[in-house]
Amino acid sequence: MGFAESDLTHDRFLDGKLRVWQPKAGYRAGVDPVLLAATVPAQAGDSVLELGCGVGVANLCLSARVFGLDLTGIEVQPDYAELAQRNADENGHDMTVHCADLRALPESVLQRNFDHVIANPPYYLRDRGTAAMDAGRETALGEATPLADWIDAATRRLKPKGHLTVIQDAERLPALLSALDDRLGNVRVLPLAPRVGRSAHLVILQARKSGRAAFRLLAPVVMHEGVAHDGDRESYSAEIRAVLRDGAALALQSR
Amino acid sequence: MGFAESDLTHDRFLDGKLRVWQPKAGYRAGVDPVLLAATVPAQAGDSVLELGCGVGVANLCLSARVFGLDLTGIEVQPDYAELAQRNADENGHDMTVHCADLRALPESVLQRNFDHVIANPPYYLRDRGTAAMDAGRETALGEATPLADWIDAATRRLKPKGHLTVIQDAERLPALLSALDDRLGNVRVLPLAPRVGRSAHLVILQARKSGRAAFRLLAPVVMHEGVAHDGDRESYSAEIRAVLRDGAALALQSR
Repeated sequence: MGFAESDLTHDRFLDGKLRVWQPKAGYRAGVDPVLLAATVPAQAGDSVLELGCGVGVANLCLSARVFGLDLTGIEVQPDYAELAQRNADENGHDMTVHCADLRALPESVLQRNFDHVIANPPYYLRDRGTAAMDAGRETALGEATPLADWIDAATRRLKPKGHLTVIQDAERLPALLSALDDRLGNVRVLPLAPRVGRSAHLVILQARKSGRAAFRLLAPVVMHEGVAHDGDRESYSAEIRAVLRDGAALALQSR
Repeated sequence: MGFAESDLTHDRFLDGKLRVWQPKAGYRAGVDPVLLAATVPAQAGDSVLELGCGVGVANLCLSARVFGLDLTGIEVQPDYAELAQRNADENGHDMTVHCADLRALPESVLQRNFDHVIANPPYYLRDRGTAAMDAGRETALGEATPLADWIDAATRRLKPKGHLTVIQDAERLPALLSALDDRLGNVRVLPLAPRVGRSAHLVILQARKSGRAAFRLLAPVVMHEGVAHDGDRESYSAEIRAVLRDGAALALQSR
């Protein structure tokens, strides 16, 4: 089990503040977990549970921004879970990774409630999309667990007033919103658009357990400057560059 | 029954292209039905059913933009239904208004299918909000009929490939999306924001019966120029001014 060293790359995130091992061929973390981490309103000492943590990039990015977090990661694929633990240890972040299905969490996790639950669930329905060539990539990208199960598992593990933060393909916003129930309030959706004037390609949803405030659809964050792709030139907007390079926060609550 | 003339105002819409009777004290049409009409992709000769048409502003604005529409309006409040018919007749538009609950449509309507169904359902849940002083305003603004019943009635009355277009308070986007089912596809949501960078206050949802395309969250349309209210000065953005003054279209399909 596990990846051979030669199957891995050692990648820089947050301008090198994090170095993360991930498989060459499987599911590879891009900007999405970094964006997810930027929007979590965690404070020093908070507990954070990540469902489907992959190699751990979201939790580790969050931990690089906020001091002294108590991090837990759940990952169903053993080789990814192993890499997540290794990445946490080598970067000196306090994260415990459990290899488990989020619908059958270990007893030690079921006995706890968390200030934050975060997730970057698979972006497509497995029976609709084209199967990925790589089995690990397939599990990471293709949904086997319905989105409603992710939201339910997350909601159960939140403390009262705790925050759920989820990043998802914008195409699945209806499924995401339909999965919410009365246990959650203060729901905010931040659209992420590739360019100004374009449809959102991603959404970040944040909700608060037992919150009472009304739903809000926030103004979009634009990922790239300009109206079209400009060759190989770095084109991230200043706001996104600050998130990806400097590990800045992207606060939904102040928008 | 019916309003006394002295209880009515005779208001200009679309820079005077329409003159509309509405009650002084009750529910008064603002920009929302004008915006709704602007987004309906109707073509000359199409049939249009409006659920909850009030005094008829949305259907009449649409008819002012697109030639030769066959318009039907459903309105549960008899005095509003009567005004809608009067407004259609006096403005020379071909609309038949039925006074009916949308869950118990008249047989003549049930026997038909329409190219377009449009609606501006009440914006708040009646048991949550403060009751409006005026009973007519209360019925128009406060939900007695669940949003899912509006969507179901609309979907049933659409032809295959027909378009549903609904405007709603942005706070109720989760309820609106949860009310959709597999009969509808090509769902697009256009957020309307009061100012650049602000949360959406309204959303317009458009869907196609038997459509297969994925959901899209469009870039917002900004209602007002500038970042704050600027006294009494006209502040509508050029795009919105064209809709409200000139009756221009606001096409969701080309965004």
